[in-house]
Amino acid sequence: MIFGLILLILHGNLINGRPNIVLIFADDMGYGDLHSYGHPTQEYGAIDDLAAEGVRFTQWYSADSLCTPSRAALLTGSLPIRSGMVGPRRVLHVDDAGGLPKNETTIAEALREQGYSTGMVGKWHLGNEVEQNDGRHLPCHHGFDYVGTILPFTFHFLCDPKRVRSQRLKICDAKMNVLCPIITQSTPQFSLDKMKTKCFLTRNTSIIQQPIVPETMTQQIVDDVKYYITKNKQGPFFLYMSLPQLHSAMMCNPQFCNKSKRGIYGDNLNEMAWAVGEVVRLLRQLQIDRNTLVLFISDNGPALELCFHGGSSGFLKGGKATTWDGGIRIPAIAWWPGKIQPGINTQVLSSMDVFPTLLQLAGGNGRNNGNLDGKSIADLLLGNHDTEIHKILFHYCSDRLMAVRFGKYKIHYHTQPLPRYGDNCPDGNPIEDLITGLGCYENTTTHKPPLIYNIETDPGETHLLDPSNQQNVLEEVEARIKAHKATIVPVKSQLGNSREILKPCCNPPTCVCNYPASVTKKTEL
Amino acid sequence: MIFGLILLILHGNLINGRPNIVLIFADDMGYGDLHSYGHPTQEYGAIDDLAAEGVRFTQWYSADSLCTPSRAALLTGSLPIRSGMVGPRRVLHVDDAGGLPKNETTIAEALREQGYSTGMVGKWHLGNEVEQNDGRHLPCHHGFDYVGTILPFTFHFLCDPKRVRSQRLKICDAKMNVLCPIITQSTPQFSLDKMKTKCFLTRNTSIIQQPIVPETMTQQIVDDVKYYITKNKQGPFFLYMSLPQLHSAMMCNPQFCNKSKRGIYGDNLNEMAWAVGEVVRLLRQLQIDRNTLVLFISDNGPALELCFHGGSSGFLKGGKATTWDGGIRIPAIAWWPGKIQPGINTQVLSSMDVFPTLLQLAGGNGRNNGNLDGKSIADLLLGNHDTEIHKILFHYCSDRLMAVRFGKYKIHYHTQPLPRYGDNCPDGNPIEDLITGLGCYENTTTHKPPLIYNIETDPGETHLLDPSNQQNVLEEVEARIKAHKATIVPVKSQLGNSREILKPCCNPPTCVCNYPASVTKKTEL
Repeated sequence: MIFGLILLILHGNLINGRPNIVLIFADDMGYGDLHSYGHPTQEYGAIDDLAAEGVRFTQWYSADSLCTPSRAALLTGSLPIRSGMVGPRRVLHVDDAGGLPKNETTIAEALREQGYSTGMVGKWHLGNEVEQNDGRHLPCHHGFDYVGTILPFTFHFLCDPKRVRSQRLKICDAKMNVLCPIITQSTPQFSLDKMKTKCFLTRNTSIIQQPIVPETMTQQIVDDVKYYITKNKQGPFFLYMSLPQLHSAMMCNPQFCNKSKRGIYGDNLNEMAWAVGEVVRLLRQLQIDRNTLVLFISDNGPALELCFHGGSSGFLKGGKATTWDGGIRIPAIAWWPGKIQPGINTQVLSSMDVFPTLLQLAGGNGRNNGNLDGKSIADLLLGNHDTEIHKILFHYCSDRLMAVRFGKYKIHYHTQPLPRYGDNCPDGNPIEDLITGLGCYENTTTHKPPLIYNIETDPGETHLLDPSNQQNVLEEVEARIKAHKATIVPVKSQLGNSREILKPCCNPPTCVCNYPASVTKKTEL
Repeated sequence: MIFGLILLILHGNLINGRPNIVLIFADDMGYGDLHSYGHPTQEYGAIDDLAAEGVRFTQWYSADSLCTPSRAALLTGSLPIRSGMVGPRRVLHVDDAGGLPKNETTIAEALREQGYSTGMVGKWHLGNEVEQNDGRHLPCHHGFDYVGTILPFTFHFLCDPKRVRSQRLKICDAKMNVLCPIITQSTPQFSLDKMKTKCFLTRNTSIIQQPIVPETMTQQIVDDVKYYITKNKQGPFFLYMSLPQLHSAMMCNPQFCNKSKRGIYGDNLNEMAWAVGEVVRLLRQLQIDRNTLVLFISDNGPALELCFHGGSSGFLKGGKATTWDGGIRIPAIAWWPGKIQPGINTQVLSSMDVFPTLLQLAGGNGRNNGNLDGKSIADLLLGNHDTEIHKILFHYCSDRLMAVRFGKYKIHYHTQPLPRYGDNCPDGNPIEDLITGLGCYENTTTHKPPLIYNIETDPGETHLLDPSNQQNVLEEVEARIKAHKATIVPVKSQLGNSREILKPCCNPPTCVCNYPASVTKKTEL
């Protein structure tokens, strides 16, 4: 009877409160990219529908300004310096043997413990393999029951077939459904070999497409997502839908190419918005929209140096790779019909808040990865209060504390240079992948006294405040930094452990394959 | 019987189609100032309600980047160079004997001919007097039947009582209800005399307040507007509500001071939004909201050099006084419940379109001021089509053609410098009224070949296009400029005709008065 009572409570819990969760993560989408964040020519789309029907956040920060550390922080709720997902190269490269350590609890693992089914589709960038093709760092080893099409690294600048021109690809096997594109090679930078090394998709631990066929990637992701949601519609489920957009290379299927008033970047964004819209449409169709929380968040600011192929930070200064607000303040939207009231929230929040928030909504007890830097915003989402969540946020570049957000103040101790476009973009179109402010130590400027801005009055970080008028603020911040630094336990860096042998390759020696989307439905765990 | 039939048709016309019109004009509000245009900390308010329920325009241009010419173009539908509202000083000063010529038909006159009652309240800046106190250029002489509280010039930087500190104002007569403030004088720049000369309100042709009491100005304007709308609720009426915000000086009544997360500028904007909300509330209360078109437009870009006292151009480059897009692209919203579908429009449009649009909606025949530069967007507003309205827009600074907008291209022949903040804003607060790019000839740069931007992809005018790839575009534009210039008929400049004697003064020799708001209801025509 007690067992029956527990089941009843559990059942009641499930149907009364615990939502399904769809966490949609964008790549390099800037604060100013969406129509709902003010872009003048970007078309209105399904992501803007989420903003109109949900809550749109205007001061939501990433834990880092680049992919790998930002994603580690999203999934662990902790600063990347705590998990070792930092290092001089700042992100995982294809030859890296490191990845998110196993002792880090991901939000997928935490929700699975609460009885959630967990799934992931899309970009990972938290490690691939330790030995060739062992896939030891892939999401199936980090708490995801279902794993659809995965982009283990990034939809890199080199993945654009249009950049590889003069060498026809010879390998082509119709029976194996191997990719048979007209891929050609022009310059050493854009060789087919480089493209294949950087650009591949996996499922579980196997490569399923090499090189990537950009035109079908979004559809393939959407197919997997739909399959997973439909299969798990009884809930509760947690789906991490991590989109390859809007990282260069720019891609689009013909349905979206050359349609946006904004140009190629707008086309990409519209394709991405279509994918988001498909998810929302399915939730409605399955009549689970009213018990599903959808979070839409970007990983970091836009790649400004890519000109017409990079995004917009809108009102903000700087972009990707820097701790100017353009690099770390990101679009973030929460949608849950009937539960989250439509509106706008201007609180200072962090992507690290996702972990404790989802756990609270799932009925968990605020489980902590040693030092959880995020805080639950569940009550804020549900309109129960809007009191200050973060007194202070620490803005790192790799393992170096660059700046803090403290109330209305942004305080920079070190800054990276602003974008230098140089000759990289004749007529707005980039020649090479370029990031101006990549260094965390080299090419930075140290400020003593620090630069201080009132970022709520001056979001563009234009008008310096006089530090001599802000002594109290600076002293309080310094005390808080000291206390924070005392909580940082040294761990091994997971980035930059290169092994020559780690060169992804399916069907050796060609390293070319393309298993179609239909295969994917047979391979879930 | 024929007379009866005409009356019937006229009546049918009135109740079926011809809307009341409320044209709300803002001062120096930048493209990025409103919450609905993406400002991260500006509070959501009644203007954003208009945007949510109406259509928000993202590529709407002023005819000039400063007050006087922009307002002349709004009311005449023509470039200011055609009416002579141009000159080296660029705007009318208090000692100017010039004003909008009588042979220019204003939209008020045109609508009056169509049977509209016409009213105006707020900022004018199209001329004051020819002889002292004759008020020959004021709105009662330009087609407005009802004239409420008028700010003949601008709510100038010098109008802030907080800047005038050390000389107590002696003149004070309770019986006359004369202003008795604790106004004091500190520096020669901020003398009480200068304040009185620049800062006064009129009604019809009489000064009713000198100097201005900022705390009550918005309320006084709202009272007048409510009085006019209520009196004319049978319609059709045309009301030009021209707000003193957000020009410096910053002002607020205590209800709005120190409330905005954004700071003092946000307070001012919130007070302004309150005024707009009061109008909409009254329209609903009188049940005339469904046959009233409300247009909300700014006059030009924000005064960036005033730092925390100036606005934001958001995504755009530069601000007020310049032909960078930040100076001329402005927030614009059209609201007409049941007639205008909620949405966003990205067409290239102009404030000069207001004249022919309102005239068409009023049933007029497209009356033309010689050369009307605006085009009717009535069909676009009502959703009947969205085809291209302007093939080309000419961006002037005074009488000099600086740049054009041609399709997706912005082409600069001459540019003004971008803001130099210098030492004007310690801790973000301005010391003096400063405009960097004021000159149209001096301190400008001429570009041969012109600077070319793809402004729909690159709204920040960051990435130059290669002119050698745009020869066809440049040739077509040059032909269009030539044809356009042939239509410009030389007229006398109305700006800069100073007369020493024109020094506004009520109650000589004190030049101090304050007739309360209640008086205003007795003085309408």
